[in-house]
Amino acid sequence: MIHHAWLRPGMWAGRRVRIVGDGLEVVREEAARAGFVPGDPADLVLAIEDVGTGPEGFRLGRRNGGIAVSAGAPAGLLYGFFEVLRRGERPIGADEEHRPARERRMLDHWDNVDVHPVMGQVERGYSGGSLFWSPGRDIGRVRDYARLLAATGINAITVNNVNVHAAETRLLTERLDEVAAIADVVRPFGIRVHLSVNFAAPMVAGGLSSADPLDDVVREWWKEATARVLGLIPDFGGYLVKADSEGQPGPFEYRRTHADGANMLAEALEPYGAVVHWRAFVYDHRQDWRDRSTDRARAAYDHFAPLDGQFRDNVILQVKHGPMDFQVREPLSPILLGMPRTRLATELQITQEYTGQQRHVCYLAPMWTGVLTGTDLVAVSNAGDDPFWTGHPLAQANLYAFGRLAWNPALTAEQVLDEWIGLTFPRAREILHDLMDDSWRTYERYTAPLGVGWMVRPGHHYGPDVDGYEYTPWGTYHFADRDGIGVDRTRATGTGFTGQYPEPWASLYESRDSCPDELLLFFHHVPYTHVLQSGVTVIQHIYDTRFAGAARVAAMRLRWRDADGLVEAGVHERVAERLDEQLRSAEEWRDQVNTYFLRKSGIPDRHGRRIF
Amino acid sequence: MIHHAWLRPGMWAGRRVRIVGDGLEVVREEAARAGFVPGDPADLVLAIEDVGTGPEGFRLGRRNGGIAVSAGAPAGLLYGFFEVLRRGERPIGADEEHRPARERRMLDHWDNVDVHPVMGQVERGYSGGSLFWSPGRDIGRVRDYARLLAATGINAITVNNVNVHAAETRLLTERLDEVAAIADVVRPFGIRVHLSVNFAAPMVAGGLSSADPLDDVVREWWKEATARVLGLIPDFGGYLVKADSEGQPGPFEYRRTHADGANMLAEALEPYGAVVHWRAFVYDHRQDWRDRSTDRARAAYDHFAPLDGQFRDNVILQVKHGPMDFQVREPLSPILLGMPRTRLATELQITQEYTGQQRHVCYLAPMWTGVLTGTDLVAVSNAGDDPFWTGHPLAQANLYAFGRLAWNPALTAEQVLDEWIGLTFPRAREILHDLMDDSWRTYERYTAPLGVGWMVRPGHHYGPDVDGYEYTPWGTYHFADRDGIGVDRTRATGTGFTGQYPEPWASLYESRDSCPDELLLFFHHVPYTHVLQSGVTVIQHIYDTRFAGAARVAAMRLRWRDADGLVEAGVHERVAERLDEQLRSAEEWRDQVNTYFLRKSGIPDRHGRRIF
Repeated sequence: MIHHAWLRPGMWAGRRVRIVGDGLEVVREEAARAGFVPGDPADLVLAIEDVGTGPEGFRLGRRNGGIAVSAGAPAGLLYGFFEVLRRGERPIGADEEHRPARERRMLDHWDNVDVHPVMGQVERGYSGGSLFWSPGRDIGRVRDYARLLAATGINAITVNNVNVHAAETRLLTERLDEVAAIADVVRPFGIRVHLSVNFAAPMVAGGLSSADPLDDVVREWWKEATARVLGLIPDFGGYLVKADSEGQPGPFEYRRTHADGANMLAEALEPYGAVVHWRAFVYDHRQDWRDRSTDRARAAYDHFAPLDGQFRDNVILQVKHGPMDFQVREPLSPILLGMPRTRLATELQITQEYTGQQRHVCYLAPMWTGVLTGTDLVAVSNAGDDPFWTGHPLAQANLYAFGRLAWNPALTAEQVLDEWIGLTFPRAREILHDLMDDSWRTYERYTAPLGVGWMVRPGHHYGPDVDGYEYTPWGTYHFADRDGIGVDRTRATGTGFTGQYPEPWASLYESRDSCPDELLLFFHHVPYTHVLQSGVTVIQHIYDTRFAGAARVAAMRLRWRDADGLVEAGVHERVAERLDEQLRSAEEWRDQVNTYFLRKSGIPDRHGRRIF
Repeated sequence: MIHHAWLRPGMWAGRRVRIVGDGLEVVREEAARAGFVPGDPADLVLAIEDVGTGPEGFRLGRRNGGIAVSAGAPAGLLYGFFEVLRRGERPIGADEEHRPARERRMLDHWDNVDVHPVMGQVERGYSGGSLFWSPGRDIGRVRDYARLLAATGINAITVNNVNVHAAETRLLTERLDEVAAIADVVRPFGIRVHLSVNFAAPMVAGGLSSADPLDDVVREWWKEATARVLGLIPDFGGYLVKADSEGQPGPFEYRRTHADGANMLAEALEPYGAVVHWRAFVYDHRQDWRDRSTDRARAAYDHFAPLDGQFRDNVILQVKHGPMDFQVREPLSPILLGMPRTRLATELQITQEYTGQQRHVCYLAPMWTGVLTGTDLVAVSNAGDDPFWTGHPLAQANLYAFGRLAWNPALTAEQVLDEWIGLTFPRAREILHDLMDDSWRTYERYTAPLGVGWMVRPGHHYGPDVDGYEYTPWGTYHFADRDGIGVDRTRATGTGFTGQYPEPWASLYESRDSCPDELLLFFHHVPYTHVLQSGVTVIQHIYDTRFAGAARVAAMRLRWRDADGLVEAGVHERVAERLDEQLRSAEEWRDQVNTYFLRKSGIPDRHGRRIF
């Protein structure tokens, strides 16, 4: 059985609906699915009218004792209908106008066609196989997924991994019909399909001898390939490219800039109103840990800021929210504040690669609301063909929250969570708030401290390994020694990364005294005896928070017992299993991190708790 | 082109041979291959005669101006012929009697039928695919391999991995003909085939509901399976079993002892004169690093010593030479000194899992000669379908040396190496001695210090990761903190492991003062400032040896240039590439280990060399 997530059928059973307008087949189906029956006088009127809210907006109010939704287009009406479902019994008062804050609200899927023997089918996926590409794929399931996404406000998806391997390169060419089949299924829900493409596709799939973006033959190849795509998928959204990154090909090979590369694709897509998402995740992944002059945190800004203003209008530079890679705590990427003449998208990671891999409860929206800057939003999906969609049933909330925040960034993380709980597990509302409200900070408390990141096991990135990345080529170091820890990224004595920020951040981060505690070790190397703004020393903070974090998980695990009978048995059991593992893992984190720092610092816990 | 290794064809071109006796087809072929032509008066006479040297021995001397070899059986005559080839131009004087010190001289192959996506086909193999099971297997290559082995004195091989997966379990049953085909090829070279079997084979391959060694149905199944094997392979050598180890099934599941398990198989094999090799490598691989009461080094002795005297006569308990797992330096396993009423075999590892993976030059015989105790000898092969047989051409020497030492443990490592060089790369004799004589100690100098082991990257075991195994379930810890390092295995204050040794070793290892420097950290936790018998402190020893080890590799790399033109171009190039990598890796080891301990101890190098 597939879990219904936030769209339970029959919620409005027996209510009467009137639907006015053409092209509203999906709206009719969705209304029927929710339990509405056609009838008059209607409890709900859904009508196409020119209400001036744009192609996706709608108006919501009451008319003749019923609820009325009006929109200029089917997509807007569908969004309005889903807003009605979300409201449930909560009152709708005066006439409301709704429209999305952002034109494009996008999910990237790191799904492969082939199944990797170790990584599985979805890179950094923890929810089973790919919804799009698994061998026994159920196209009805893709439709259900599209419905769920539309009900959060998502209107664009990339259907394959940014690391575009051999089989996936051909989605652009021979296997394009498979992409078109997905587009056909998701289109009625207002969702456009994008494709991750291999920068070397002209060579890999096209047989050319070059992928040089300034080579006319290459440009022509992309134009022709793009024309074929748009011929089959008229509302095709565009390309996503990871170039010159972690071994992927890119323009550097031809001594061209990333603007050259992105603009070539943009030119091919421009006639169709489609876009290029070009990732800014470019750094030296073969760094030598002995080289203290290179700082991975600087890399994206150093590569891209000089190109500001050189990208075509339909290029969107897609920037991870932090300068490293989706750690539990990072400062905002300085690119997001430093390229005023470039269209930007902030990339978030819903799939919990570094935040517990959907074995830990970790509601991420409080992190995200801290990094929203007004750019476009894109996020890496956490969904798969798992019956609960997201492996951990409570990880659904992250998928839901991303869509809602992309539509309306003024919502708070708490509001969105409450909405999701109300739609999904309404009888366990208090319990779920207890478990989830603070779960991101809880996860932070038992893992890497004070913004330093990267204490995970290399490769799979689950569980603690304090020195795991310390002597690797990945540029991911904490420099802990017997006296102190942290990365000096100041202008005065360090890598100068703080200088990539405009004021007031540049000065805020530059000084140990003003740098926020939670980012202190990201920006500064300090002694273990350094006193934080919180009043405790770094070493005592490490001990205190590790103990507190693990204790909190133990309490969460007990609390979940109260939900027995308040959620479906299958959900209760799955969450209970995951909480068992979360507690085991949190205690492992607590003990490894504490032991590591006790061994290194020699400073005992002032409360005398057990450190192994 | 396949490298000829230590059997170059045509070495004796034009000499005359006379061969007297029946069943000597292989002897004739080998003589012809070496360049001999039949003729009289003969430079070499090979004759079957009853000379009282047993089935594998031979007499060697001069008669009528030529060399004369006499043996009671074809196998002995073949060994005698290979001895002649080995002698080359070195004089043969008075009549010599040769016979092997050990009846069984055995290689284990960790070869799988299936190819693992990450590990490849040969577990811990660094020499390409399996000679026996790779899809394009060349049976002629198997014959060449058998010839090479016979020329070192090997007379038994296990043809599949001790971790017996699904496909390999069926080598005992449906796929037995594939094993028989190998046996047919190697038999003329005096080599018997053994098979690794899955303890749960009665269930996996036989469909029974149990593998309980005291269950009559199970015992009957093994008897019938064994009868079928011997029906097809009349000289079948026996079974090799890894039970209750690293996830493999075993008798513990049925609350039976390992004697129960081994004796069941021994009983089935006994009528045919075949044996069970039962591995003593049993330990808790899901240990909790927080548990300081468990010591993996103790495990094998704790499990097996109480069973001494309970094994049937045709059970051979196969014991890794050290108590851990083939680290570059370990003490002798106490089992090898503590089970007088049990047949024992010492297991060595030719494949360089923890000693540079055939990317580093590491001639292992000096380690082996230090752990030979008079038991049978078994070793894990390093050969594969690589054109040089062993990945690194110089790693051939380890394969050669094992066979020679198994035949004659009185040989020194230097003698054997000189033999191998003389047969293989005679024009580069001095250069190869320079590179290889001390290469094991060189490897030790830049890797984990003073016997503590386990500073490799988890999983693949290549390259440094000082804390890589420190907080894992594998029982492999060094306990380094800011003050000191090492594992306290004393009776007085530690795990009591030293008490598993008889005197004088028990006392020798128990005391810091008498414990040999090279094993100090295996047995003791000491401060970095502890002064070694060598007169330097532990920390300074770490620095000094890391610098010396890496510098030695740099010198080896330069020295190899002198061999250009003295060995085949392909060999020169392959070794040069590997030396480049060895130097890169040795410098990485030097710098990571030094930095790790400088960060932890805070004690600078007294010579002020660069530590990052």
